Amino acid sequence: MLVAAAKAVNQRGPNVAVIVSLDSDRDKGRGPSLARINALVADDLRRVNELIMLRMESPVSLIAQVAGHIIAAGGKRLRPMLTLASARLCDYHGARHLALAACVEFIHTATLLHDDVVDDSALRRGSATANAVWGNKPSVLVGDFLFARAFQLMVEDGSLRVLEILSNASAVIAEGEVKQLITANNTETSETAYLDVIKAKTATLFAAACRIGAVIAERPQTQEEALDCYGLNLGIAFQLVDDALDYSASQAQLGKTVGDDFRDGKITLPVVLAYRRGNEEERAFWRRTLQDLEQREGDLDHALELMRRHGALDDTVERARHYGAIARDALGIFPNGAAKQALVDVIDFSIARGY
Amino acid sequence: MLVAAAKAVNQRGPNVAVIVSLDSDRDKGRGPSLARINALVADDLRRVNELIMLRMESPVSLIAQVAGHIIAAGGKRLRPMLTLASARLCDYHGARHLALAACVEFIHTATLLHDDVVDDSALRRGSATANAVWGNKPSVLVGDFLFARAFQLMVEDGSLRVLEILSNASAVIAEGEVKQLITANNTETSETAYLDVIKAKTATLFAAACRIGAVIAERPQTQEEALDCYGLNLGIAFQLVDDALDYSASQAQLGKTVGDDFRDGKITLPVVLAYRRGNEEERAFWRRTLQDLEQREGDLDHALELMRRHGALDDTVERARHYGAIARDALGIFPNGAAKQALVDVIDFSIARGY
Repeated sequence: MLVAAAKAVNQRGPNVAVIVSLDSDRDKGRGPSLARINALVADDLRRVNELIMLRMESPVSLIAQVAGHIIAAGGKRLRPMLTLASARLCDYHGARHLALAACVEFIHTATLLHDDVVDDSALRRGSATANAVWGNKPSVLVGDFLFARAFQLMVEDGSLRVLEILSNASAVIAEGEVKQLITANNTETSETAYLDVIKAKTATLFAAACRIGAVIAERPQTQEEALDCYGLNLGIAFQLVDDALDYSASQAQLGKTVGDDFRDGKITLPVVLAYRRGNEEERAFWRRTLQDLEQREGDLDHALELMRRHGALDDTVERARHYGAIARDALGIFPNGAAKQALVDVIDFSIARGY
Repeated sequence: MLVAAAKAVNQRGPNVAVIVSLDSDRDKGRGPSLARINALVADDLRRVNELIMLRMESPVSLIAQVAGHIIAAGGKRLRPMLTLASARLCDYHGARHLALAACVEFIHTATLLHDDVVDDSALRRGSATANAVWGNKPSVLVGDFLFARAFQLMVEDGSLRVLEILSNASAVIAEGEVKQLITANNTETSETAYLDVIKAKTATLFAAACRIGAVIAERPQTQEEALDCYGLNLGIAFQLVDDALDYSASQAQLGKTVGDDFRDGKITLPVVLAYRRGNEEERAFWRRTLQDLEQREGDLDHALELMRRHGALDDTVERARHYGAIARDALGIFPNGAAKQALVDVIDFSIARGY
């Protein structure tokens, strides 16, 4: 459960709360984890990481510095792992999945660099963002470089089908980001409009990352589509939980601050639900804090209280469970085995983060 | 000749000078012009413009607004015209050059949007920049969209060779932009370092735009390379003259303000030459104004005076003439005719702007 024993910590600013999780299953390592997919793709992922380091090099040393900063900061490499595991699921024997997994990570990293500029973010995964360290300019330009480099890698691979999938995904991601700009700070945003945004900006790349595994294994269209469907719905579930985590306990464990989205006035599903379920006074609170960005001491705590009152976080995770179930069923046409189990684990892990 | 009868115009800020050109050849329409290339590709260019309008559409209306703003603001469409004229030179009969010319313009437009963010520019071609109208965020994201859209167009075209040329160009452009960031405000920048930057950030796309004409016409490697060489050297000449124009009379005629580069502390060839040819007092002036960006009333006029004293603008145009000559010779292997003459005119026009 999302437990919100919130406590304002003044030295981190008025609206930074630390929430203590009462659930300790994950702490003891008993919850769903990425252990099986990690084991499945470990060798491949090592080679992908080498490729990433090799191909982000440039005679212009600032590029490798900025790219290295965000790539080394790491993250889970979830998207390239999905390409690797999908290729494995499709019984692919070759080496093309390595460069294409790197390619997916480059596109992801390029969008992160630009996202941080657009959001004016100072922290990502607990470290200073590239724009905080070097300013916005290198972040914009190194993002462009990584994007171009991703296309160079695809051209080397030589599949027009892969190029089609990832250029389409890139256009959709950019559209989603712009759509998010427009809906930003609008508390009237509907759940559908919110879903459209996260489908475009997050789930589309998950879908593409998975689909590529079937493409290079030359699997029939139905299997390509099944992996696309798995990735898309996993991506939606993943983002929903991410948005819940921004208001929750587990976030603090991940080295992130709680309430970043609140401070930015971002409209995510927890807010959409709390706003729609709230009374007029509560809606006025959401409008003041998120639309007008007039935030005072204690506002984040009050937001957390409203979310608990209306079950907004639990129900966001419940919605994620719905998309997770679709993702699981999408894999039904594939034979059982280690690869399939690993991909199912990713769904379970993505959702369990919200507990 | 670059004539610098500079006069400070106070209501436009301390460092906005208007320079009166004593040369009136161009005013009377007798100088080199783009008339012949315009006539050569007029029908094709109309179709390219239609394609550009059609393909910048998106369900997210802000994208078409931002893209439309910068694309409609126009410019000469020089890069797509080069693709069209190069295809004509190679006796290409087909329709692929149209989409690829649009593609080149999309890449160019994406870099302009990002450039204006990186440079904090408020004006482009006499109109407000997209970032001035909508802020930096849409400019970054719509730039990403146009870049992705360019790759979608290439994928539809289906040539891996074209994808290779333009993904390589895109990576080199981004590298050049980052390199420019690093050399920015460094008055010690060498002419070679400056050339490396403009080769990457400007000339590479000119080269790619021209090379594509030979690729789709399936011409031998030597002709591909000849067009690449023409485009690269034309691009260098074009940028050199652009940099001279920023300090010159003709600029005011083009609806641009004089001295933008000076106010931004950009190190371009006119500055590189004036700095290297100046005495210690002069160098201190350049360091104060461009390195430390401490600019006072009358500084731009003084900068113009120093450039005239050392022939920095004339010699920048002289250098441009050198690259123009290389571009002209590169075309030597092609038969004479309307297409070749049109491409030669582009060289002459690019350089004559500096008079």
